[in-house]
Amino acid sequence: MKKILVLGAGKSATSLIHYLLERADQEDWTITVGDRDLSLAEHKVEGFERGKAIRFDVDEEERKEKLIAEHDIIVSLLPAFLHPKVSKACLKIGRHIITPSYVSADDLAMSEDFAKADLLFMGEMGLDPGIDHMSTLQIIHDIENRGGNITAVRSFTGGLIAPESDNNPWNYKFTWSPINVVLAGQGTAQYLKEGKRKYVPYNRLFSLYETYSIPDYGAFEVYANRDSIIYLDKYELKNIPTFIRGTMRREGFCDAWNAFVKLGLTDNGFPIVGSSKMTYNDLIEAFLPGKNPQLSLQQQLAEFLGIDEGHETMKKLAWLGLFDNIQIPVENGSPAMILKDLLEPRWKLEPDDKDMIAMLHLIDYELNGEAHRYKATLVVKGQDAENTAMSHTVGWPLGIMVRLLSQGKIKSRGVKIPIMPEVYEPVLKELESFGVVFTHQDAVVGFEI
Amino acid sequence: MKKILVLGAGKSATSLIHYLLERADQEDWTITVGDRDLSLAEHKVEGFERGKAIRFDVDEEERKEKLIAEHDIIVSLLPAFLHPKVSKACLKIGRHIITPSYVSADDLAMSEDFAKADLLFMGEMGLDPGIDHMSTLQIIHDIENRGGNITAVRSFTGGLIAPESDNNPWNYKFTWSPINVVLAGQGTAQYLKEGKRKYVPYNRLFSLYETYSIPDYGAFEVYANRDSIIYLDKYELKNIPTFIRGTMRREGFCDAWNAFVKLGLTDNGFPIVGSSKMTYNDLIEAFLPGKNPQLSLQQQLAEFLGIDEGHETMKKLAWLGLFDNIQIPVENGSPAMILKDLLEPRWKLEPDDKDMIAMLHLIDYELNGEAHRYKATLVVKGQDAENTAMSHTVGWPLGIMVRLLSQGKIKSRGVKIPIMPEVYEPVLKELESFGVVFTHQDAVVGFEI
Repeated sequence: MKKILVLGAGKSATSLIHYLLERADQEDWTITVGDRDLSLAEHKVEGFERGKAIRFDVDEEERKEKLIAEHDIIVSLLPAFLHPKVSKACLKIGRHIITPSYVSADDLAMSEDFAKADLLFMGEMGLDPGIDHMSTLQIIHDIENRGGNITAVRSFTGGLIAPESDNNPWNYKFTWSPINVVLAGQGTAQYLKEGKRKYVPYNRLFSLYETYSIPDYGAFEVYANRDSIIYLDKYELKNIPTFIRGTMRREGFCDAWNAFVKLGLTDNGFPIVGSSKMTYNDLIEAFLPGKNPQLSLQQQLAEFLGIDEGHETMKKLAWLGLFDNIQIPVENGSPAMILKDLLEPRWKLEPDDKDMIAMLHLIDYELNGEAHRYKATLVVKGQDAENTAMSHTVGWPLGIMVRLLSQGKIKSRGVKIPIMPEVYEPVLKELESFGVVFTHQDAVVGFEI
Repeated sequence: MKKILVLGAGKSATSLIHYLLERADQEDWTITVGDRDLSLAEHKVEGFERGKAIRFDVDEEERKEKLIAEHDIIVSLLPAFLHPKVSKACLKIGRHIITPSYVSADDLAMSEDFAKADLLFMGEMGLDPGIDHMSTLQIIHDIENRGGNITAVRSFTGGLIAPESDNNPWNYKFTWSPINVVLAGQGTAQYLKEGKRKYVPYNRLFSLYETYSIPDYGAFEVYANRDSIIYLDKYELKNIPTFIRGTMRREGFCDAWNAFVKLGLTDNGFPIVGSSKMTYNDLIEAFLPGKNPQLSLQQQLAEFLGIDEGHETMKKLAWLGLFDNIQIPVENGSPAMILKDLLEPRWKLEPDDKDMIAMLHLIDYELNGEAHRYKATLVVKGQDAENTAMSHTVGWPLGIMVRLLSQGKIKSRGVKIPIMPEVYEPVLKELESFGVVFTHQDAVVGFEI
């Protein structure tokens, strides 16, 4: 019997826990789900004999180590900044760990130690990062095996709302941690374009988007996602001229979101003292330069943004109630927390709403003197607000990885991301059986001399 | 005999240490100067019998506590993030502490404990913050004592270069920690304008400057300095409509510095991997959107900044060598570190250079139905690169404070900043004897109904 420990029982854990519980008899597993909030964990394992809920606090050192020692495979869904407390304990005690979070430089530094201990730390094993890595590498390796030379990789993913549930002017709802959406992109994005490194600071990130389309689904805006350059080594594409990973949003989103960035409303670094005594009107006014106080707030904002009052961005902002004289309910919140609080009910998935994952890979290569473009697209829709495409596409790869590891089918050791055939082949294959199916196109686009 | 302990023997400590050593016989003091770098401390006390240099590491807990216990008054010039390690030890052991650093919320939370222990933690006791508080409050209290009602406080300080040593197009040289100059202003600035709070995010800070002049010294640009609003309570000006603290630079500086902010060159959060293999040209290009690659780098940058190629900003950037094909000497540096490294030799004080402190207070008030504007200006010049106006105006107030405290003349206890008459009166008076003399103007500017 193998004992699996899942740490974190939040929204994104549902599909993973179900995947594991449904296969527990057949695989002879017991599944322990731990969360700070015991009732959350209990809810997730309800009705499954092989599931057990416990209260888990990552800071209770002794109890944590005992717990990890009692299990064979650990899956950590804790917030990224808490991961090291779990991964270090896994190394110390000698357990495999799987997580959907980004692998940090500190994580990587432990790779040799993990390998020496015959252990695997598999990071970035969710959707993005996760399925994006696996599907990109499967295509890249196939092209390379056919003798092709990869010249550009563009890989974009978006957690969006399905057209049939899309009823707001932002064409967006939350399917992921709202505060993480508000804070997304802070820092400097990095990618490679035509042989040159490009850096995009946060203040320009949402104005430098490009537009791509997916057949049947229309146009999407794409902005650069964090540091793409660190993946050149990992993907073994050291001499590739163009390489970018990006985030997809619906058309018009980036310009409108950029209004928040320009105003300064995504700063999470200081409290707006007495914010609950202000209206959203007051808040916007406080962030505006106020050069023409005789103008209305909307006029001032439109002027500040350099757009007409009738611009789509202004409609999006007005729809949020930003220009209404409504009291801010948050007390002493940061601008980002106040914004999150405003957006949360307005971008909330209704019980019957379907979310949608979109992924687009554009892989350019040369083969026999000809330039090719390989295009792979994926659209996955959720069932409802509980069983979201986001939860599925994060949870299923984690679950499949647990199964493969538990069955002894994975030989990789050390701190890794899922870019090796022994991982991506079986995972992508099983994902297809769940309806996670890419559409592939491969065409000659011109002649290279 | 009183024993004084000075922690930190860097550039800004010179004037303080000299102030103390020169008065050591008369006041019956011994002065211990501690620094991680023993030779630095030794250099500072050289030739003074009552001065003693020691190696000091803030992380050697036991030794630190023993050292603090052996002294009566502690002056901490350590970097701000190390202060808590000293102030907490002072509270535990029962010693007064004086520092030029900003008082944080964590510091303030210890105020009651310091007061209960009959101890004083005097923060913000340098130039800015320091002399600015003292001189502003002296004027404010005087106006209030005359029955006036303060309606606006604008207080600006700049650490600059004296006109006679000003020989670069930026009209600026480093008289303060270069990396702190590069990183200055990150976060959101806050102030009060005509009864409304204003927030300025970093991405707009250097474009929202205003211009003021000081007689005989010409025009200065002023941008908002951190959070002014926290001082409303401290200054006891809760109902004032306009209150802003700002930083002064020479005309043209803000636009040019804003080019770095817009590009993203002041980010200290990530390394430019392989930076030593790049030229400054490459660096600028990597940060430019690159929409018109057929243009020259200067043309692209001018277009990006929305200015002509002949604009003063372009001349300033060209003077730094940014457009030259010079290899970057920094390996894997953050953009901010690379920028600091570029600026440091170019903005270096030459041995005979004189720096200059400029301070400007504009205090509006109503008295007997009339609107008044009180204007106080201060210009202090240094002697040379060693004896700078910056070092003097940071060190002297600290030294005077040590003397007053040592003589039992200060009754204030708890965590404070220098806003009380028992501090500002004697400190400002003694500063005058060193040539730190404000020019005062007080005029009726109109009629208030």
